[in-house]
Amino acid sequence: MFSEKMHALGTSPSVIRDLFEYGNKRKAEIGADKVFDFSIGNPSVEPPEIVKETIEKLLNESDGVSLHGYTSGPGDMSVRMAVSDYIEKTHGAKASPNHIYMTCGAAASLTVTLGALCEDGDEFITFAPYFPEYRVFVESAGAVFKAAKSDKNDLQPDLASLEDLIMPHTKGIILNSPNNPSGVVVSEENIIKLCELLKKKSAEIGHPIVLISDEPYRELVYGDVKVPYLMNYYDDTIVCYSYSKSLSLPGERIGYIAVSDKMTGADDVFFAICGSGRSMGYVCAPSLFQRVIKECQGMTSDISVYEKNRTILLNALTSYGYRCLSPDGAFYLFVEALEKDAKAFSEKAKEYELLLVPSDSFGVEGFVRISYCVSTEQIENSLPAFEALAKAYK
Amino acid sequence: MFSEKMHALGTSPSVIRDLFEYGNKRKAEIGADKVFDFSIGNPSVEPPEIVKETIEKLLNESDGVSLHGYTSGPGDMSVRMAVSDYIEKTHGAKASPNHIYMTCGAAASLTVTLGALCEDGDEFITFAPYFPEYRVFVESAGAVFKAAKSDKNDLQPDLASLEDLIMPHTKGIILNSPNNPSGVVVSEENIIKLCELLKKKSAEIGHPIVLISDEPYRELVYGDVKVPYLMNYYDDTIVCYSYSKSLSLPGERIGYIAVSDKMTGADDVFFAICGSGRSMGYVCAPSLFQRVIKECQGMTSDISVYEKNRTILLNALTSYGYRCLSPDGAFYLFVEALEKDAKAFSEKAKEYELLLVPSDSFGVEGFVRISYCVSTEQIENSLPAFEALAKAYK
Repeated sequence: MFSEKMHALGTSPSVIRDLFEYGNKRKAEIGADKVFDFSIGNPSVEPPEIVKETIEKLLNESDGVSLHGYTSGPGDMSVRMAVSDYIEKTHGAKASPNHIYMTCGAAASLTVTLGALCEDGDEFITFAPYFPEYRVFVESAGAVFKAAKSDKNDLQPDLASLEDLIMPHTKGIILNSPNNPSGVVVSEENIIKLCELLKKKSAEIGHPIVLISDEPYRELVYGDVKVPYLMNYYDDTIVCYSYSKSLSLPGERIGYIAVSDKMTGADDVFFAICGSGRSMGYVCAPSLFQRVIKECQGMTSDISVYEKNRTILLNALTSYGYRCLSPDGAFYLFVEALEKDAKAFSEKAKEYELLLVPSDSFGVEGFVRISYCVSTEQIENSLPAFEALAKAYK
Repeated sequence: MFSEKMHALGTSPSVIRDLFEYGNKRKAEIGADKVFDFSIGNPSVEPPEIVKETIEKLLNESDGVSLHGYTSGPGDMSVRMAVSDYIEKTHGAKASPNHIYMTCGAAASLTVTLGALCEDGDEFITFAPYFPEYRVFVESAGAVFKAAKSDKNDLQPDLASLEDLIMPHTKGIILNSPNNPSGVVVSEENIIKLCELLKKKSAEIGHPIVLISDEPYRELVYGDVKVPYLMNYYDDTIVCYSYSKSLSLPGERIGYIAVSDKMTGADDVFFAICGSGRSMGYVCAPSLFQRVIKECQGMTSDISVYEKNRTILLNALTSYGYRCLSPDGAFYLFVEALEKDAKAFSEKAKEYELLLVPSDSFGVEGFVRISYCVSTEQIENSLPAFEALAKAYK
């Protein structure tokens, strides 16, 4: 009657969703302000005012038939030009408008790209910890999913582990920096080494290994941290981007795929992307929000709130004895669990009304993810609970 | 480097797109008002005023974090309740909110449904003439696509032809009424016969045959024509809907899948739909437009424009000697070509600056599709050309 595989995907338990639902139940029992829910990675900051202003302007100045009408499959050409210009101006990299494909958000950017690249027997590799949907997307494209390790101390990519996994069937690598769930930004030094390795291995296996840069958190970095633009380091790069986090628009499903002009057979790869989107019924990215993001290139929500939350949490947790790893970007802290079993630690944290996601579903053991895209008030109120939890392990 | 299959899909020639592009070129040469482009099925009528009003109200009264935030995968529960209520109130059929899945438009409704149902070796059958993407969507889900015939005189489904095609591997039927490209609305009498056949054949092959009703043109019917609601005639029905045509919002990608409460294993089918959407990266339908359509249930753009165009065109073409088939709905006229080869007829029509889509890509020979979702002025100005074209064949 139905696909067992899709049924399994539709019913598979999600640790994050379960925690979130537990939190809602618990809030109803003891009051919302008594439960410290750090489970969900939803932007908590309003979109910048220009989003609303642009929507109002478009509604008043455009005719509805054009504004809400179909764009071409890869997107409105003026929008693709704006994205291409922004990439060149900001990063000095060239992805011409003919290599920009507007998508329904980051997940679509990935599924469409993977579908475009994947042939029978292909393998894609990422680094653990990783966003759990990577496995779903890679396997749904018909490929094999593999995870290389990260360094235990700073969660930077472990390149020796990657080298061991690269085989003739390796089609590509997915790099996610700033990283969900760890918040880690891969250093330029490691990017250079990674790209050297990919070039060497591409030559060895006789075909280019594609570097997919999944970077919805690009703008969410703190201090003077830089996120290197991968097209400048490696020709066979495809950038998968979304405005969900930078503009606080996750529900609107708007993002893009950018194929480097320098990519081997860039035009053909782009045609395959168009075909892949078509096969999944992605007719075009939402037309109103294509026009909105055209006017918002390089802008972000007020991410100083995330920075403030991060500083308070990082300082407090460190002073209580927690070990937090290189939290340079995104809105996640990856914290070592205070016992070996992260799930048991997450259960223990619940006794203190702290909802922390154990790291097992991210492909590593022994950590919890704390999403600090919450109110600063929640951060401040939760600190005694974190302190008490730490004391319970002493 | 890339999937040959997706590359082929991304580069496959499209008769409609080619005609449209030829039209743009020709307009630049001789003036836009001299070219009568009937190639594209884009709504030409403004969305109803309530769309703009609702967007403005939502922008002013909601906080941006909720308005533009993620909804759950199947959609915002209050939106799903509104859709479910509307179906029950209007059609007397039950698809509970737990069986409503909000989608990014009609194409996504179909790809997600097909992905949810399809297992190895499955077959899906539709009636020719059909929307050409059906083949792409069915084959991309991994199934075999087959087309049954329609009656030559009125283009109603040929049930004997369908019966011949139903095999043990038949998973479902796709019915599209009002039909693109023919405009035909399947009569209640034929719906009843079709459903009886499906019940008989389901019993014979030992599993239910799913009836997928693809109905983005449901509201676009003329005169006192009724479009029967299939859930009331057949339990194993899934409705794939889109607001693209009824509200003139094709670029916004908003629609839904409704699983009949009476469907065999309805809950499990729904879980498979959730899994299928997840596998393709459909995180949620666009959040702002979910809230917009909640307030627009049962409303439409001013479709009297289409009715007026249809009447003018139908009367004139008939008087010139063309045969137009049962054009009860949508915004298409399906007209018999004046020579056997519809492509040659379409080429001949170009000499009169008429852009008409030959029917071969819709799975039948000998017709052209005329999209009358254009200005009434274009319809009126084109009549002498249609008359001259008819005379050229006398």
